[in-house]
Amino acid sequence: MNILTLYALPKSTKRDLLAAHPDWQIIERDQYQPAMGATIDVILGWNAAAQTLLSQPNQVRFVQAMSAGVDYLPLASLQAQHIQLANTAGIHAEPIAEYVLGGILTMARGFFPPVTSWDAQARFKQMWTLRHKQAVVFGTGHIGQAVARHLGEFGATVTGVNHSGRTVAAFAQTLTQASAAPALKQADIIVNTMPLTPETNHYFDAAFFAQLQAKPVFVNVGRGASVATEALLQALTSHQLGSAVLDVFEDEPLPADHPLWRRADVLITPHISGQTEQLRRQVADIFVPNLEALAATGQIATHIVDLTLGY
Amino acid sequence: MNILTLYALPKSTKRDLLAAHPDWQIIERDQYQPAMGATIDVILGWNAAAQTLLSQPNQVRFVQAMSAGVDYLPLASLQAQHIQLANTAGIHAEPIAEYVLGGILTMARGFFPPVTSWDAQARFKQMWTLRHKQAVVFGTGHIGQAVARHLGEFGATVTGVNHSGRTVAAFAQTLTQASAAPALKQADIIVNTMPLTPETNHYFDAAFFAQLQAKPVFVNVGRGASVATEALLQALTSHQLGSAVLDVFEDEPLPADHPLWRRADVLITPHISGQTEQLRRQVADIFVPNLEALAATGQIATHIVDLTLGY
Repeated sequence: MNILTLYALPKSTKRDLLAAHPDWQIIERDQYQPAMGATIDVILGWNAAAQTLLSQPNQVRFVQAMSAGVDYLPLASLQAQHIQLANTAGIHAEPIAEYVLGGILTMARGFFPPVTSWDAQARFKQMWTLRHKQAVVFGTGHIGQAVARHLGEFGATVTGVNHSGRTVAAFAQTLTQASAAPALKQADIIVNTMPLTPETNHYFDAAFFAQLQAKPVFVNVGRGASVATEALLQALTSHQLGSAVLDVFEDEPLPADHPLWRRADVLITPHISGQTEQLRRQVADIFVPNLEALAATGQIATHIVDLTLGY
Repeated sequence: MNILTLYALPKSTKRDLLAAHPDWQIIERDQYQPAMGATIDVILGWNAAAQTLLSQPNQVRFVQAMSAGVDYLPLASLQAQHIQLANTAGIHAEPIAEYVLGGILTMARGFFPPVTSWDAQARFKQMWTLRHKQAVVFGTGHIGQAVARHLGEFGATVTGVNHSGRTVAAFAQTLTQASAAPALKQADIIVNTMPLTPETNHYFDAAFFAQLQAKPVFVNVGRGASVATEALLQALTSHQLGSAVLDVFEDEPLPADHPLWRRADVLITPHISGQTEQLRRQVADIFVPNLEALAATGQIATHIVDLTLGY
């Protein structure tokens, strides 16, 4: 089996795999040449070279993505080619939940924009605490659940919103998108963790923001295209939103001259909320069992993406 | 009883008190004149006028401070005059714990200094998560416990340090200051919540910082004078400390030209970590029972400060 690792495995993992399977080859990112494309069976990670590889005749059977959301992959093409796809759902949940809580606390406790003189005390009259606050989290998967658990630990009441309205333990209540209006009306905190699908594209638009009455902080760690950026800017200017913490954007990189960069009520990060220094090991813990299962049975074993649903 | 409220009680509390005790008078901050000084029995809050009042002949029996730490009050003079003192220990615990977690997550997740362009992605290679990190919290009172509980919820292991080394439930282990060295050596996070006493004055000095090996973030929500500021600056410059989140300072206000203001590894706030929009009600919940007890028995009932110990 020829395995293209666009993301480096831990050295010990690589060594163990090759010891157990002397016939396998691991081709690292900087060793890969387009001429090898037709010989690759498995791809770990994704980049332009992988895109090119799959658009030509190939024998790829399995792509291991490095993210929970996989909307950036050519899902229809993978399906047509019978290529199995796995994500890394779950491993980003805790790092992203830390990001979300950190972002909310940053706004609640007045850390942003940073104070540059002692006289800024007036700002802190606006400070608030999470206790007894109402939060609405869109998406009740691994990330949404981790966010809800931590918000609850700080005394917030957390409503989850998902497709079916099915109950999920981490949430005080779970609603469908259609029934979420009353919770949104009094929301102090809104967090988007949803994957990008046709349904969630531009979900957060002018009509959405018009429902809000408690000047919530809005956190987006889901997908940039779920937010209508112009409507978000309007909602901030009109104080329908109190503030925003944004890791993802419709256009990435966010252009240098974009008005979002200049606002004192918007904390921006460059699509890094899932970063953790423990990522390499966690990816291997999903990828290696999938490799072994593929070799043994022809089918991957875990974190399997339904290519029709897109998650 | 003549009650000087330098901090405004909730309107309903004031109304209820006067209805129950028609002979009581509540004098608000802006109604107070120095000529009234000799007639005051109780003071809620503290300012220069209160200081003057107590330095002259007076009949004050009870001062309700608005803070957990009371080192800024003339404790010896209160003791000599047999004036009872209560603090508000506990009510700041959750707001301060939110501040501490927000500050740590701000440093861990790369929110400070705020990113101003997409190219700043390199910074985020340095990002870390709280899971499996070692934290040492100085002070195991209300604030220290709330900090420890939340750090634990994010997967950190939390050592408490207190005077006696007595066990406190929120901590994985509790050490004395004399036995804390091994924990400090591997600490990723250090939080000071101690009151200021002769023992804790300049406790965090060059010798303290020299023990650290994991470039921790240092958070001070205790008292400014517990830190030797020059040693802290040195420890940051020499990377004994990775970063600092500081709400309190040896000299407050922190002078505008102080080098701490100019550092990209120091997040500063102007002594506001305990702020909460729910404070007024929480203060009343301590002050009113104390007033009633004082009237009934001559002794206050709760949050009593030992004027010899200073807390």
